[in-house]
Amino acid sequence: MPHRVVVIGGGFGGLYAARALRGAPLDVTLIDRRNFHLFQPLLYQVATGALSPGDIAAPLRWVLRRQKNTRVLLDEMTGLDPDARLVQLTGGSKIAYDSLIVATGAVPSYYGHDEWRPYAAGIKSVEDALEMRRRIFLAFEAAEREPSEAARRAWLTFVVVGAGPTGVELAGSLAEIARDTLRGDFRAIRPEESRILLMDQSPRVLPSYPEKLSERAERALRRLGARPVLGVRVVNIDAEGVTVRSSRGEDRISARTVLWAAGVKASPVSRTLAETAGARLRPDGCVIVERDLTVGGRPEIFVIGDLAYLEQDGTPLPGVCPVAMQQGGYAAKVIQARLAGALVGPFRYHNKGNMATIGRASAVCELGRVRLHGFVAWVFWLFLHLMYLVGFQNRVLVLMQWGFQYFTFNRGARLITERSRRE
Amino acid sequence: MPHRVVVIGGGFGGLYAARALRGAPLDVTLIDRRNFHLFQPLLYQVATGALSPGDIAAPLRWVLRRQKNTRVLLDEMTGLDPDARLVQLTGGSKIAYDSLIVATGAVPSYYGHDEWRPYAAGIKSVEDALEMRRRIFLAFEAAEREPSEAARRAWLTFVVVGAGPTGVELAGSLAEIARDTLRGDFRAIRPEESRILLMDQSPRVLPSYPEKLSERAERALRRLGARPVLGVRVVNIDAEGVTVRSSRGEDRISARTVLWAAGVKASPVSRTLAETAGARLRPDGCVIVERDLTVGGRPEIFVIGDLAYLEQDGTPLPGVCPVAMQQGGYAAKVIQARLAGALVGPFRYHNKGNMATIGRASAVCELGRVRLHGFVAWVFWLFLHLMYLVGFQNRVLVLMQWGFQYFTFNRGARLITERSRRE
Repeated sequence: MPHRVVVIGGGFGGLYAARALRGAPLDVTLIDRRNFHLFQPLLYQVATGALSPGDIAAPLRWVLRRQKNTRVLLDEMTGLDPDARLVQLTGGSKIAYDSLIVATGAVPSYYGHDEWRPYAAGIKSVEDALEMRRRIFLAFEAAEREPSEAARRAWLTFVVVGAGPTGVELAGSLAEIARDTLRGDFRAIRPEESRILLMDQSPRVLPSYPEKLSERAERALRRLGARPVLGVRVVNIDAEGVTVRSSRGEDRISARTVLWAAGVKASPVSRTLAETAGARLRPDGCVIVERDLTVGGRPEIFVIGDLAYLEQDGTPLPGVCPVAMQQGGYAAKVIQARLAGALVGPFRYHNKGNMATIGRASAVCELGRVRLHGFVAWVFWLFLHLMYLVGFQNRVLVLMQWGFQYFTFNRGARLITERSRRE
Repeated sequence: MPHRVVVIGGGFGGLYAARALRGAPLDVTLIDRRNFHLFQPLLYQVATGALSPGDIAAPLRWVLRRQKNTRVLLDEMTGLDPDARLVQLTGGSKIAYDSLIVATGAVPSYYGHDEWRPYAAGIKSVEDALEMRRRIFLAFEAAEREPSEAARRAWLTFVVVGAGPTGVELAGSLAEIARDTLRGDFRAIRPEESRILLMDQSPRVLPSYPEKLSERAERALRRLGARPVLGVRVVNIDAEGVTVRSSRGEDRISARTVLWAAGVKASPVSRTLAETAGARLRPDGCVIVERDLTVGGRPEIFVIGDLAYLEQDGTPLPGVCPVAMQQGGYAAKVIQARLAGALVGPFRYHNKGNMATIGRASAVCELGRVRLHGFVAWVFWLFLHLMYLVGFQNRVLVLMQWGFQYFTFNRGARLITERSRRE
């Protein structure tokens, strides 16, 4: 019987692990709760009405259809028996493995303030993004109907919490929506008078990037009409607004729409790994892995991607796609090497660069010693994202919609659907 | 103060009424619960994973942004005071009108068997279509995991109730999904062995079309792999399947996925019209209108589209887009003529033809005396639908996705999202 590899999660980590096992004399099973791989770096564009979920998702079965040693199961890992080497799935069924790769990723974290969740929309799943889209466009509709000036102002105030790449991208998109997309669409309000506040504890946007790029990003955001509010800590979020604390004291901002881009924590599977396989967890639930990405002294269990915690040269690896992709490839390599009786050195992340878009034709990139900004960086960002987007059809559709948007300022996917979780 | 026209509903009837009032010295308000116009004729393509909701929807504000005499409100009509000429909206607010056009359309009807609703997905809204899509693709996933042969068979049996144009389009698409789209995607099941049953009480598919076209459509469906089951009446639908009765007695079909394309009834607004303005209703709730599309002896209240019941030459007008569009234009014309002191004759529907697609490169059309079928009819169907799809961007995106689908057999938008209403 061939060696059985079970991969939990079809994100960047799991999918790249499965793909790296293509053609190997193994029996691979990829398990995901969803039937699609989601290109999360563009999820903010779904949340801001620029793309449809279908444009940035590829059915996992379709992606792996020609990989004959691999099957895909729509299911969820609910438990683990590491001694018997069995993964428990929903409904009590079990699946046996010889090697297990766990890559279930992260979910939004409210830093112990789960009571903020109903008021601050996070962005990790398609549903999250559609809910965010719903709230953004509904806010303008509510403002249009609102007779009171103060209430209208609260509807036209958008607070983005967290000034990392996602926060910057959201704030930039919001500014574009307010100033360009919706221009002329309303009769009672002027969307271009919206306030878009990008908040962070750090004294600068993109705190993990070089200072020079932070400065450029901040300038670009201001030019677009978004306002960075830095060095402030959010101490409360409710239906009416946000309370922040800074060295200048406490401040209250009336805002009906709060977007959460501040932080993530490990998916609940990490707890299962701790309870059954003795994995050690960080306070945010991430699994502390060995240098070969295995856990709990069990060389057959790999944990990769956002779920894993690993330091390199004294700094933790960031929760970004390239890390997950490289870790997926590495785990696949280790499994195959072991079967061949060979050895593989410890995992090492090769950082090819960091980037963030700020909005229309503007981005910042850091590629080793090269730093780009403005239009050049944006074109580079655009092609790199298209390159990694799975599926030829998706690439063309996304490129076309970006083209339309660039020339017409319109966003085609600004439907308000589904009921709010708030209601 | 200019004459105030309030239009309720942004479907084909309402939108075409509002558009026909462009440039007129009037004050137009279009009210819809949704912020978008939905191109319902292509909704079945969203339900079958061929298109994304954003592709067939256009934001109402955007469609009407250059029409300066018109504003759009995201709201719902909850009551009517015809003497004071006030429409009540949610939250107790009111809006005054001089002329009112009600075009709130239809919702799925289960012919008095609302207990079937959880098991038989209807298709009238974006949410309906996404729920249908979810069930269709989930059925194949469930079959792949199912060890029991009989249970697997029930997951791979799809029943479409109602063999009108929508039912035929759904059955044809299901056959394509099973035979082409999913070919090779699964390891335990063969999707091409799915049974797709298209049921109707009538002895032929497309009962309202000429017999010759029904025959051709039936042959095309069989060729694709769908099976028409005609002359049968559905007497029960539950979680396990469908019970049908025919001249040959009662029959039970185990099927986990039932799609409802059998009938519609008036939206609940018709009840409000009956209670407040004395409108007379048909058993399905449709409002019986005068030959000038007004109701209750009130010349200032028009009811148009699927909500209205009107006979022409002894036959009721069908609930199709062209009727709604022509009625919208007519109501707008009457309002403007009255202000100019002119008279307009009674409404007359000009039927330019009927058509239905059956699947890949196959359709039937009836255009006066001309009857087309097969590839020619399909190309005609395709261009006609693109022509009426609102927004240049949508047209290009839909055409491109059809192009991809035609050459690759793939459907890009087959995401399973959202929780089922069944759960």
